[in-house]
Amino acid sequence: MELQEAIFKRRSVRRFTEDAVTDEELKKIFESVRWSPSWANTQTWEFIVVRDKELIEKVTGTYSDKNPATKCSLSASALIVLCAKTGVSGCYDGKEATPLSNWYMFDLGIAAQTLCLQAHEMGLGTVVVGLMNQDACKKLVAAPEGYEVVAVIPIGRPAVAAKEGPQRKEVPDFVYLNQFGKKMFE
Amino acid sequence: MELQEAIFKRRSVRRFTEDAVTDEELKKIFESVRWSPSWANTQTWEFIVVRDKELIEKVTGTYSDKNPATKCSLSASALIVLCAKTGVSGCYDGKEATPLSNWYMFDLGIAAQTLCLQAHEMGLGTVVVGLMNQDACKKLVAAPEGYEVVAVIPIGRPAVAAKEGPQRKEVPDFVYLNQFGKKMFE
Repeated sequence: MELQEAIFKRRSVRRFTEDAVTDEELKKIFESVRWSPSWANTQTWEFIVVRDKELIEKVTGTYSDKNPATKCSLSASALIVLCAKTGVSGCYDGKEATPLSNWYMFDLGIAAQTLCLQAHEMGLGTVVVGLMNQDACKKLVAAPEGYEVVAVIPIGRPAVAAKEGPQRKEVPDFVYLNQFGKKMFE
Repeated sequence: MELQEAIFKRRSVRRFTEDAVTDEELKKIFESVRWSPSWANTQTWEFIVVRDKELIEKVTGTYSDKNPATKCSLSASALIVLCAKTGVSGCYDGKEATPLSNWYMFDLGIAAQTLCLQAHEMGLGTVVVGLMNQDACKKLVAAPEGYEVVAVIPIGRPAVAAKEGPQRKEVPDFVYLNQFGKKMFE
């Protein structure tokens, strides 16, 4: 699939068929994820694939009630838990190197986009779940001290055709020239 | 270009030719960036394209001395300053909705990967600069209260052929099954 088609057509998918995602498919996705860029190539990403039915229920139980991904998560054949090692990305000699903290969030965002695009190219659907209790999930997957759970991505085969997708801002509305607020494009 | 080729072959580029990147090319890149997913579709990204030579020098002056992108940034025909609106992504009713903060970092990471992949597909090179003084840069581009500068991406035409790229961890080293540390693949 052409890169642009993948970028334009990827949608958050919240309804999966019963046809399970295979280990081979997951491996292919991670073979792409590993080529994501990261802070000084620190690659602080770690992924836990949750296949165990009981654990899928428990991990889904950490989502906020309002989360629209709860139903598809329960029916998914796999959840991908995104973890990050902390204190590395954004740091230099073990100390925060910029005024911003949580650089691992930036790096995990990069990796998440690689993951979702690659899955889409393979006909698989994903949705990023961030509205959840990451600390509770961290305990469920036994992530040790020094690591944080950032998000969960349920993955499956889309049960319905992709829709238009939610509206996006137009380019002139978010791109400026030299100074914030000075439009670059009409 | 095939998605996988873009993902596998994209490299951080730190040497550009003198041939300037055009406004049309930048617009095409942002037409892709706008399709990035974000927290509840909040699209908190804002981009300032720095073309002014004097401002390019000043923005580059906010990088840390150690930053290996300083030289290419000074010679670039455009720098893309990544900004985020704060207090929206990761929030619900104006309050942080998860134990993690700085969700805009995750969303900007997603958008950055879309940007870098799209640029690569068009034969352009990018490098993400995070090791810098974001607060100083924020003043230079006049980003208002409630916004943060996250990173700068110098963009240009690669002056040298892409190299192998730095080593990456292998899939078995960062993917686990059900519990952190339990290898899923051999």
